[in-house]
Amino acid sequence: MVKAIEWKDGKVIMLDQSKLPVEVVFIDCTNYKIVAEGIKKLWIRGAPAIGIATAMGIALGAQDIAAKNYKEFIKGLEPIFNTLLETRPTAVNIKWAVERIKKLLKEKKGESADRLKELLIEEAKKIHEEDIEVNKAIGRWGAQFIKDGDTILTHCNAGSLATGGYGTATAPMLVAIEQGKRIQVIADETRPVLQGARLTAWELMQAGVPVTLITDNSAGALMKKGEINLAIVGTDRTVRNGDVANKIGTYSVAVLCKEHKIPFYVAAPLSSIDFSITTGDKIPIEERDSHEVTHIFGTCRIAPADVKVRNMAFDVTPAKYITAIITEKGAFRPKDLKKLMKKEINLDGLRL
Amino acid sequence: MVKAIEWKDGKVIMLDQSKLPVEVVFIDCTNYKIVAEGIKKLWIRGAPAIGIATAMGIALGAQDIAAKNYKEFIKGLEPIFNTLLETRPTAVNIKWAVERIKKLLKEKKGESADRLKELLIEEAKKIHEEDIEVNKAIGRWGAQFIKDGDTILTHCNAGSLATGGYGTATAPMLVAIEQGKRIQVIADETRPVLQGARLTAWELMQAGVPVTLITDNSAGALMKKGEINLAIVGTDRTVRNGDVANKIGTYSVAVLCKEHKIPFYVAAPLSSIDFSITTGDKIPIEERDSHEVTHIFGTCRIAPADVKVRNMAFDVTPAKYITAIITEKGAFRPKDLKKLMKKEINLDGLRL
Repeated sequence: MVKAIEWKDGKVIMLDQSKLPVEVVFIDCTNYKIVAEGIKKLWIRGAPAIGIATAMGIALGAQDIAAKNYKEFIKGLEPIFNTLLETRPTAVNIKWAVERIKKLLKEKKGESADRLKELLIEEAKKIHEEDIEVNKAIGRWGAQFIKDGDTILTHCNAGSLATGGYGTATAPMLVAIEQGKRIQVIADETRPVLQGARLTAWELMQAGVPVTLITDNSAGALMKKGEINLAIVGTDRTVRNGDVANKIGTYSVAVLCKEHKIPFYVAAPLSSIDFSITTGDKIPIEERDSHEVTHIFGTCRIAPADVKVRNMAFDVTPAKYITAIITEKGAFRPKDLKKLMKKEINLDGLRL
Repeated sequence: MVKAIEWKDGKVIMLDQSKLPVEVVFIDCTNYKIVAEGIKKLWIRGAPAIGIATAMGIALGAQDIAAKNYKEFIKGLEPIFNTLLETRPTAVNIKWAVERIKKLLKEKKGESADRLKELLIEEAKKIHEEDIEVNKAIGRWGAQFIKDGDTILTHCNAGSLATGGYGTATAPMLVAIEQGKRIQVIADETRPVLQGARLTAWELMQAGVPVTLITDNSAGALMKKGEINLAIVGTDRTVRNGDVANKIGTYSVAVLCKEHKIPFYVAAPLSSIDFSITTGDKIPIEERDSHEVTHIFGTCRIAPADVKVRNMAFDVTPAKYITAIITEKGAFRPKDLKKLMKKEINLDGLRL
């Protein structure tokens, strides 16, 4: 499995995803500024992967702090925190990682600078490992829905490249293969940014998973031919009633699945579930620049100059289209999701 | 309205659609070999437009024949027929136009070469005009379904560029505008060949029709928001039970329309209805080269090298998804289509 990011020999090794699939370039980040550049320039993307990169960037920057004591060390971290926080202001996982590191540092008040440097490396690695564990658990809960011989449709990229490893939507596929099931994956190319063609197809090929690329237009026809058994997608944000926001086109896939009686699953780490929002229609949907639609890779123009474009980056799939939401704690019916808010809930009785 | 092809001052003026929308180049075809090159190299495409180009190519070539009598003239036409027939062997409209010209020539046996040269120009112009009349009639029957203020979704290009003028799917839109209705058109980009982005958006902008380009992935989300009132598409082949073969992705649009209770119309000149085929599952579906999906405009690679691709060029939309099939003789329920085979049918009682 390809690693989007890795701590190795005192450096951060980051795959430059912005060049995929034409070039495969791993960047040796020898200081935190290169990590920040990578987050900013989208060498790395995907909420969990960005969180891991932030923690690793902090740990990397910390090694170069010349501090005689705890206070000086904390002061030395400030520009590192700020540089990372400024890379992508709306990426919640950067803030999350910074807060987690700050909390740890508070608990370790009085430790020597050298010890703190070690602790930050340990914490970054721990964040990475925890993410992989979450994804593996999603994989185990999700793999139960995959039968030997199944063909699975996925949309966009919720794979290893977006996470510390295993991915979210791809984890059930990878675990199913580990269980000895023979599967095929169909990857939608996912216009306009083509994450399916550029990233999902590429990473599954690297992992040795049989994958076939189709245009987004082809999913319906393949379903009608009976060539797709189930769909698994990721999510940017899932809300209390089980509605799911994800890459534009996810909703169309869900409607097509319903029409063909094909199960439609969403892989959602608990961290991506926003219980503060009650229904999907309250999720703000980002509309992005027309250039993304009219120019492939920013250069190859495919549409008339000055054409009016509607470029919604995400859509919302209502809970009624979703067979199950697969989390690290189990797979649940969308309507049961809100019960997970309660701490004392018996999950065994709730799981699918 | 942009003209894909025109007979003007003894020449054939052909728009090179292969360069659209980046460059707008009209080719002065001064001999039939340039017309043939245009058909072969896809400067012109769309069944009706290809038929018109063939007839104009024959008329153009005929002018240069040095013949003393009917027999010599007919002999001089042979290489012209053959050159045009060899350009795109599967394009039925080339054969159709050649047969029509041959039939005319049989009826005009004994005419002088000079008179025959005139007659071939007249016939080519007549074929062009007849196509425009068919499309205008489709437009009049179709415009009844368009209300003032409507937003209409279309897929692929069944516009002026594919015909002698007015288009098929676009004709109801253009007639609605002539009737004073204010409309908006949403054009799906139509991957993989991007006819929607490259051709439909461009020609509607040229005609002053308000058009917005979206990715194919966005149609469902827009329907859910209530922003699409109806869909009108063209067809490559419609069969006896009302099933419709059209560009890949048409079926997905139809399913999405059904889910959102949006009327879905197919504009189909009678010439595109194949009564010899009983149901859509008997229509052969061409699977095309993976390169069309993996490379934009044949050059800009967007997918991993050697990725497996499924590239179905067309799909079949079953009759049950279709509100009406709009022909030049009226708009009909798909299930009533087979009644059009009978000559003595009372169309008034059958029309929607």
